[in-house]
Parts: sequence; structure tokens; C-alpha cells
Amino acid sequence: MKSVKNQENQKTLNVPFTGIVPPLVTPLLDNDTLDLEGLERLVEHIISGGVHGIFILGTTGEFASLSYKLRRELTERTCRLVNGRIPVLVGITDSAFAESLNLAKVAADCGADAVVLAPPYYFASGQPELLEYLQRIMAQMPLPLFIYNMPVHTKVVFSPDTVKAAATIPGIIGMKDSSSNLAYFKQVQYALRDRQDFTFMVGPEEFMSEFVLTGGHGGVNGGANMFPKLYVELYNASIARNFEKIIPLQQKVMQISSTIYNVGHYGSSYLKGLKCALSVMGICSDFIAEPFHRFRDPEREKIRKLLEELNYRELL
Amino acid sequence: MKSVKNQENQKTLNVPFTGIVPPLVTPLLDNDTLDLEGLERLVEHIISGGVHGIFILGTTGEFASLSYKLRRELTERTCRLVNGRIPVLVGITDSAFAESLNLAKVAADCGADAVVLAPPYYFASGQPELLEYLQRIMAQMPLPLFIYNMPVHTKVVFSPDTVKAAATIPGIIGMKDSSSNLAYFKQVQYALRDRQDFTFMVGPEEFMSEFVLTGGHGGVNGGANMFPKLYVELYNASIARNFEKIIPLQQKVMQISSTIYNVGHYGSSYLKGLKCALSVMGICSDFIAEPFHRFRDPEREKIRKLLEELNYRELL
Amino acid sequence: MKSVKNQENQKTLNVPFTGIVPPLVTPLLDNDTLDLEGLERLVEHIISGGVHGIFILGTTGEFASLSYKLRRELTERTCRLVNGRIPVLVGITDSAFAESLNLAKVAADCGADAVVLAPPYYFASGQPELLEYLQRIMAQMPLPLFIYNMPVHTKVVFSPDTVKAAATIPGIIGMKDSSSNLAYFKQVQYALRDRQDFTFMVGPEEFMSEFVLTGGHGGVNGGANMFPKLYVELYNASIARNFEKIIPLQQKVMQISSTIYNVGHYGSSYLKGLKCALSVMGICSDFIAEPFHRFRDPEREKIRKLLEELNYRELL
Amino acid sequence: MKSVKNQENQKTLNVPFTGIVPPLVTPLLDNDTLDLEGLERLVEHIISGGVHGIFILGTTGEFASLSYKLRRELTERTCRLVNGRIPVLVGITDSAFAESLNLAKVAADCGADAVVLAPPYYFASGQPELLEYLQRIMAQMPLPLFIYNMPVHTKVVFSPDTVKAAATIPGIIGMKDSSSNLAYFKQVQYALRDRQDFTFMVGPEEFMSEFVLTGGHGGVNGGANMFPKLYVELYNASIARNFEKIIPLQQKVMQISSTIYNVGHYGSSYLKGLKCALSVMGICSDFIAEPFHRFRDPEREKIRKLLEELNYRELL
Repeated sequence: MKSVKNQENQKTLNVPFTGIVPPLVTPLLDNDTLDLEGLERLVEHIISGGVHGIFILGTTGEFASLSYKLRRELTERTCRLVNGRIPVLVGITDSAFAESLNLAKVAADCGADAVVLAPPYYFASGQPELLEYLQRIMAQMPLPLFIYNMPVHTKVVFSPDTVKAAATIPGIIGMKDSSSNLAYFKQVQYALRDRQDFTFMVGPEEFMSEFVLTGGHGGVNGGANMFPKLYVELYNASIARNFEKIIPLQQKVMQISSTIYNVGHYGSSYLKGLKCALSVMGICSDFIAEPFHRFRDPEREKIRKLLEELNYRELL
Repeated sequence: MKSVKNQENQKTLNVPFTGIVPPLVTPLLDNDTLDLEGLERLVEHIISGGVHGIFILGTTGEFASLSYKLRRELTERTCRLVNGRIPVLVGITDSAFAESLNLAKVAADCGADAVVLAPPYYFASGQPELLEYLQRIMAQMPLPLFIYNMPVHTKVVFSPDTVKAAATIPGIIGMKDSSSNLAYFKQVQYALRDRQDFTFMVGPEEFMSEFVLTGGHGGVNGGANMFPKLYVELYNASIARNFEKIIPLQQKVMQISSTIYNVGHYGSSYLKGLKCALSVMGICSDFIAEPFHRFRDPEREKIRKLLEELNYRELL
Repeated sequence: MKSVKNQENQKTLNVPFTGIVPPLVTPLLDNDTLDLEGLERLVEHIISGGVHGIFILGTTGEFASLSYKLRRELTERTCRLVNGRIPVLVGITDSAFAESLNLAKVAADCGADAVVLAPPYYFASGQPELLEYLQRIMAQMPLPLFIYNMPVHTKVVFSPDTVKAAATIPGIIGMKDSSSNLAYFKQVQYALRDRQDFTFMVGPEEFMSEFVLTGGHGGVNGGANMFPKLYVELYNASIARNFEKIIPLQQKVMQISSTIYNVGHYGSSYLKGLKCALSVMGICSDFIAEPFHRFRDPEREKIRKLLEELNYRELL
Repeated sequence: MKSVKNQENQKTLNVPFTGIVPPLVTPLLDNDTLDLEGLERLVEHIISGGVHGIFILGTTGEFASLSYKLRRELTERTCRLVNGRIPVLVGITDSAFAESLNLAKVAADCGADAVVLAPPYYFASGQPELLEYLQRIMAQMPLPLFIYNMPVHTKVVFSPDTVKAAATIPGIIGMKDSSSNLAYFKQVQYALRDRQDFTFMVGPEEFMSEFVLTGGHGGVNGGANMFPKLYVELYNASIARNFEKIIPLQQKVMQISSTIYNVGHYGSSYLKGLKCALSVMGICSDFIAEPFHRFRDPEREKIRKLLEELNYRELL
């Protein structure tokens, strides 16, 4: 294991980076105001659950729905709350090159450990355009960077060849894949089989265990906002190849995925369910930024019942 | 024809709004710097060509690739350059609700006449979510607004029913459709057949004439950046149902569409060809913001030859 | 105007082929049995309405849901019923090359005038593969052929370059486009502007008039199953550029499109509404082959009311 | 473990069905002629490699490109060649309900053990339509049936709720998923966690091991046409949770996936590479039915070199 220096402030991140890194939900009071108390409770909740890092301003963090003012404020406050206890990763994905860099500089100034970048998501770039974009943005990037594959939202897939080329750009240290396509991600891993220092993290919690069992480095799993211990235990059991533990823990994860994320319609069910559950559990507000809206009472009542069926207090 | 008051500064826009409204390219020197001389030449070029309005920060204007600072600056400078000679429409599409409103306020302060809004383009909203989003944003909107259908980039289509409901929200005065699906747009028009004040503008120049011949109000056609007179003449001939003029003018438009926009690969060919041609014609820089990149010399040479084949000087 | 010889039996088809060619619904009693009386009534209904040709086994004809036995039987019976009064076009689209040829031979034997072919629709071919496929199948094709662009169902678009190359293959005489993308189809027409003998027919009835006004040859419009006279009148008015007639006729077409095709959910609404209306009008059975199912009573009642609102008897 | 009676001829299939079931390529001499000697060699090759079943007329078997005559002939000949040594599964997917049933009857008559059915693939059905389709076809189905999820080609996904409902229809005994979306398939498995008799087989070989490690029943892996022993060994190691064996075997599978399937362009690269490799190995012809075409010499030479780099003789 080696380590990557954060250029600005000489912090280091061990690579490959491993473990459970919750993609933090962004607690909100309204479209442009943070729920500061909720944020503090949530950060303490996941750190006390043993997670290995924290990722703000990802898809689960609704980065795209937040103003720049709010993204900066969240970055500053989270870094201060975490205060070096675990690495902080900051999503800097944006359709505008300049704004991604602006936010990366804020992240560096606040002492974040790395940034995370998905392709620009309005114009869909071709693979050569995407690689050139990465080369140009990395030339000015003050922090180590993970590329982030999220084709449902960005319309663009990093081809295995593009990842292979990107991995040679100084500063690009790993990849998070949220495509749910494990065949694809294993092809990417195979293409980079000689790069022991390159980190592979998987988004979907439904197969984080399988991914880790055969060489993946960890999970950026939304459910770890609610139940950090559960995902950390499943990660540890997977590293240890302890199937007696893996099977029941994974069933719990599948129960969460099949119930909490599955109330209501549209692609927003995952986010609505997750924020609603955190609110029912007393951790933070369930306000969701436009264009989505929090669950109304009937759905909230369903979430409450589903949490009871999970015996959720035992998972905390 | 009636008129819609711009709430802030009492300007009015005649409705339905008609004619050719070029979606202005954004002349750039680099990712975060305007080509100010190019902008002035371009604005004068299209106004002297007789266009009926100007639309900045649309897809052709690379709005999504520009920083907020630049979007504000472009809005201010364009409004000052135009100085009331023609209506100015400002694109305020953003994935963040707060930033769309921020920019709308800038537009209102600068004296723009209306704003244009496509759906948030990271998270894909369902139709009820989209309608609720429109209701909430219109409650704070300082200018009349056109909705903007651009599903290739936003992944979301405004269903005819959603448009019908949206058209009853105060302040929503029209729609621009860039789906290229004329069957769809005619269904939308039919759904709103009793709303004589609601404006329908079409993006693709390839069938602007057909659209106007049977009741459409005009075109937001990229080619009008290069050849405003051509598109204005085609619009006028279409309004007059003068087929002796329509047929050859439309052939010219098809020649442009089939050549200038068709050099190179990927979805970016249209924008690259358009900006390159404007540069060859001496109007403005061909720099394109990330994630795209201007044509290199071989493609530029092709564009130059295609312009010669067009006898482009006669079109000016 | 020249004419194309049908190789087998020396029939000729004038080219470009023009007018209204209804894509015949296939009247069915069950998944594998023709409604013979309904078929006869339907054929007489559209011929007496003045249509310029008849197209069986298209998408509206549910070709893909029918057994080969049934496709052969329908071809034989329709050719016999039509008996040379108007040209008969037979859809031979299939995922299997051999079966497309088998059906083309049946069509030739029955005296059909031409065949219609969309790309194989299970495996999505690349453009060079698609062109080579056309070259190989045309080498054995006994009848003139129209290519058929239907990307919603086939997942494959004929690129303008592929159409241009295909148009040089002997026997390929025209194209039907059901993409609804008029910008695309005008690019194809422009690419073939020197081929006055090549036929362009458009599927969506919503803009058949616009298409014909600027040089298109006609429409393959589903609504002409119900109201052949209406679509023929709109075609004739469009050829004559008679806007006093065009506007109200097109409004009628839009009313049909916005009501009859719009009851129920899913992509099957068009077909269900069309067959249900034909059944309510006493023309043929509304049975739809798997995987779709005819409307139940509540939807049928809605269709009945919508037909009354159309004053449908006056359209017959 | 219980067993399912084949209604016609009283054969039984143990359920859940487990192991490696190669989706047999269809050896062809031309578009409509079987390579009979190749077929026999291929069948003996995979049986001697220890596979647990054989699946003909799947996607890898180019079912959609083959005439009905050929599909029947292949079914008859394969059943005769296998002669009861391993279970035979026959793909009956078709866009026509009647033809799926026709082929199912042929399969039953020939003594096949089960059939496999993907959704009709021209018209995209909604979920209620899909479930009703399954109910109706199962009422006449002579053999046990696996549903087959293949959304890239069929455009339709079986939702977890639809699978749960389908699993209660008598005769539906399992599911093959080729979506590559392991999060989805684990949700389906979780929805059916109480159905110990329901079989889950995964298509993509890249994560067959992971799938089996946590409860999946096996793989329908194309590479097992070439190297049946390799996939059987990987399956056995996965059942045994023997990671010392799993890791190097899976690397071999990834090498195959990343090289043999990755020569050339378009979605057809997998099939072309697989058939070309089988031809280079002397097992069967590499002819591919339209709309695809076998590799030409340069690509064939690449495949030959890639096989050498694999030390492929040691894998046999």
C-alpha cells in the first residue's frame, strides 16, 4: 500500500483506498439552506458506525440540485465536523469545467482528501473528448481524484480503454462505478490488473459483498447513511470471506434495498426513501431539493413501518 | 396579439412571439473568458440580418459548460449591446433550482425580456415532479418564461398533458421544442389550440418552414448565427406561403445542415461546425468550452471549403 | 415519372410512388386466425375511400406478432381481394434473413407490387452491417423494395449515408420513415436530392401534410384505415397547397391522433385505439395478437364517445 | 431439491437446476444450412467438458436470425446428439406467440427438458401486458419454462414484481438474466427468497463466480462453448468457496472476455469473436447469419494470436 499526497496541504490518502464510504445525503431545510444540526448528527452517526471515509456531493448528496454557495458551505462545514477523523471526498462533478475546478479548490482549502468527478452531464462527450477533458482538468487539479461512472444520469460511460488511459494521468487514483453493470466493472478492473494502487469502489450496495470478495476495494453505499455498522460489518465479513456472516448481513441489505428504496414511483424513490428514513430515525430533515419532493404522510407512514419490520434499532 | 408585462421593469413582449430568434453561440477566448469583440460583432451581425429576437445561454450557447460568473457577464453584456433593439431571451436552465432563479434575477435586472427553462438535467424528473417544479419556480420568477423541450440532453420530455397544465401557470408564455419530433410538437400545439397567446417555437431549422406554414410561430435556429437573413427570408416566405421562395431557401438551409454540421463525429459536430464557420467568416472565436474542443486544421479546412461551396458571401 | 418492373410477373409501379397508403391493420379472430369478413370489409372500405395503395404486414399490421402461416395467408387473400385495383405493398421485415426472402417470394407469387423491409430487429446492426445485409438480400429479392425506418421498434436508424448507398442497390426504390424525426428525414431527402425516382413516404399522420407540402411523396398513415377519405383529401389539398382545406383537415387528423390513439397506457395505445375504433365502426374485429390485448369495456366506451365527438360518420 | 415433470414424456428436471449451461452457438454453412459436422463436434466438446446442460437457440445461438425450418432441425438434431446425457433447454423466444408455441411443441416432441422464453422483441410490452402474455402462453406450454431477461435486445425488463407473479404460474421454473445488472438480479432473487425451487442462472460470465458464491445457481456462459472445463471448474470452485482456485480461473475468464470478445466494433463483436475462435480451434464453421458477418482475415489473425496468448490448448 502506498499513499498519495494531497498537493496543497501535504495530507495523504492510503491507496488503494478501501472500505465503506457513505455517499452523504445533504440535510436541507429548504432548497438553499443546510440543516446544520442534521448534518452534524449525520456525520457523527456514520463516523461512530466505523465507516472508512465520507463522500459528500455525490448523487445521493443531490450535488446537482444545490447552488454553488451551498456546495461550498457544505464542504467547509463537513470538513470542519469530520476534523481529520476519516478521509473526506468531495464531489466536484459539474457541467461547467470552471465550476468543477472552483469547487476542487474549495475542497483543497478546507482540507478534503480527494475529489470525485463524473463526466459533464448536459452535453454527452465521446470517449476521446472525455479523455481530453480529464487531461485538461487534471492539469489544474489540487487534489487526488476518483472518476465516477454514473451513466443513468450522465448518459456517458467511461469505456474500459478510457479508464485505462485516464489511470495514467497523474492525480487520478481510482474509480467509483454506479452503473450496476458488474460485467463492465470487472472488465475495467481487468484492464488495470497491473495497477495495484488504483482504487475500485462500487456504488450499488446490493452486490458490494460480491465485489469485495473477488478483489474490489469497497462500497460507496447509500444505505450506510442509515446503518453504517451494517455495511461496515458486511465489508469486513467480505474481506474475511466469512460466509456465515455475509449471507445474513447481505439479506438485511437486500431487505433495505427492496423496501426502503422502493416506496413511490420514478427514479427518485431511492433518494426519497433514504431521506425519509433518516428523518423518521431522528437524524436529519427529509427535505429534498427540486426537482424532487419529500414523501408525503402516506409514504412516510410506509417507511416507518418498513423500518420497524427491519428492527432498525438493532442495526444502529 | 396581446402583450406580457415583464414584472420588474414594465417591458412588454408581444405574444405570441414570432419570427427567427437565433440561439446565440457564446464567443469564448477560453473556458472562462468571453470573446468580447466577437460577441459584439455577432450581435450586430444578427441584428442587421433582421432577426426578431435573440436567445442567449441555450444549448447552442453552451450554457451548461459556462461558469455562473460567465453566464452573468454574458447576460449583462448582451443586454447592453442589444439595448432594446430586439427582445432578449435568457436561458436559465440549471440542475439547481436556486441557480436558475439567481440567473433569472440577473436577466431581469439587465432588462431582458423573457427567460427560457429546460428541465433539470441531472436527475430525471417524472411528469408530476416536473409540473410541481415549474409551479414552484414560477412563484418566484421575475420574467415571462418559455419552457424548453430538449430530451436528448435532459432525458426528460414535457408530455402534452404537462405542457397543457404548465400553460395555465402565470408567467409561462410559450414553448421551444428541440426534440425534432414534429408529431409530438403538433400534439402539444393541438392540446393548446385554444390558447392563441401561447408561443410555439421550433429548434431544428430543417423543418422550420413546414412548422410555420401550418401555424407555428417561428424558429430558434442555430444557422441564423451565420446567416440571419437566410432564415428570416425563409420565415417570411413561409408566413406568406410563397413556395417559389420557400423551396430554394429551404434547400440552402438543408445544404448548411448537411455539410457544416456534419464534419467530424459525435453529437458535438453541430456546435463545432457552427463555431468553426463563424470563425472562418471572421465573426468570432471558435473556442468551445469543455468537454468539447474546437476543430483542428483538417476539419477547419473542410468547413472553409463547404462555406465556399455555399457561396456564403451571397448569404450575408 | 418512370416505372419499376416487378421482375417476376412484369407488373409495374410508377415511381416515385405517391399518395396515401394505409398500413392495413390485420383483422384477427384470435392469435392465429384471420377475421376474413373483417378483412374484406376493411379492404373495400379503404379502396372506396380513394387510397393510392395498401401496405400489409407493417407495424400497424402487427406483422411481428403473426405466424408465418398467417402472414402468407394474409398476403394471398389481400392480393386476391384487391385484385389489381391499387398497388399492394407487403412487409417482409423479419429478424431472419431466410424468412424475409420466403415471404417476398410469396408476395411476388401473389402478384404484390413491392415489399417493405425494416432492419432485423433483435440484433442491432451497425451501419456497414446494415448496408451489407441490404446488398445480400437484394441479390435474391423478387420485387421492388422500400426500406422502412422504425427505430423505436428496431433500435436501428438508417443513417443518411446508408440510405444514400442503399438507393444505388438495384431494386430499392424508396423509403418509409416512421421515426417522427422530420429533421432526419429531410436530411435523407437532401442527400438523395438528385434521385427524382426515389420515393419518400412518411409514417406519422400528424405531419403528413407538412411533409407533402415541401416535396414528400405521401403518407403511410394508420388513421387511413378508419377514414381513408380524410387522409386522401388532406393529401390532395397538400399537393395543391390549398391551405383553406389543409388547416381544418389537419385539425381533424390531430383530433384523431390526440384522442383515439391516446386512451390507455403504454406504447400499445395507438394500435388498441385504432382496432377498437374499427370494431366500433363495424368494420372488423378488435382482437390484437399477443403481447397486446384489446381494450376492455371501459376503454371501448371511451373510444365510442371519442368517435361521436369526431362526428365520425361524416368522415366516412 | 425436487423435480419438475416434463408433461409430454415424463422426463424430469431437478430444481433448482444448477451448473454451467452453455448457450450453444449454432454452427452454420450459410444463412439457412446447419454445419452438421460442426454441430456434432461442438456438442461432444462441451459434454466431454462436463457441462450440466445445453441451451440451444439463445442469443448466442442466433435464434432470431434463423428460419423456422432451421430452428426445428437444430432442435431435433441436438436432442438426438445429446441423447439424454444432459438436459437440453430450447429457446422459443419469438415476436409471434403462435411460433413460440410451435417451437415449444417441437422441443417437447424431440425430448427436450425445458424451454426458455424472452419477451416478444418487436413490440415492447408494459409489465401487465407481459404478465398476461406469460399467463396465456403457459396455458398451452408443453414443457417447463425459464424466463429470459435480455433487455439490450428486447427493450423490455422483467420487473421484480413481474417475476414474482410469473413464478406462481405453473410451469415457470426459473430465470436466466443477461442484463449484466447484478443489483437488479439480486433484487429479483430477494423477492423470491422463499422459493427454494426457483432457478436463477446468470448470463455474463464475468461475474458468474460472484453470483454463485452468494446463492446463484449457475451460468449460461458463452465462453463455455470454447472452454467448457474452465467454466465448470470455476463453477465448482465457486460452490466450494475455494478462492485459491476462483481467483486465477476468473482471471482466465476475464482474459477471454477482454480479448476474444473485443476484436472489431459494434455489439456483434462478442458473437463474431466466439464463432471465429471456435473455427480457429477446428470445432465448427464461423459463418454468422445475417445481419452479421464473420470476421475477415485480419480479425481472424488477431483471434488466432489471442488464443495463443491464452495458451488455449491447456484450457481444453
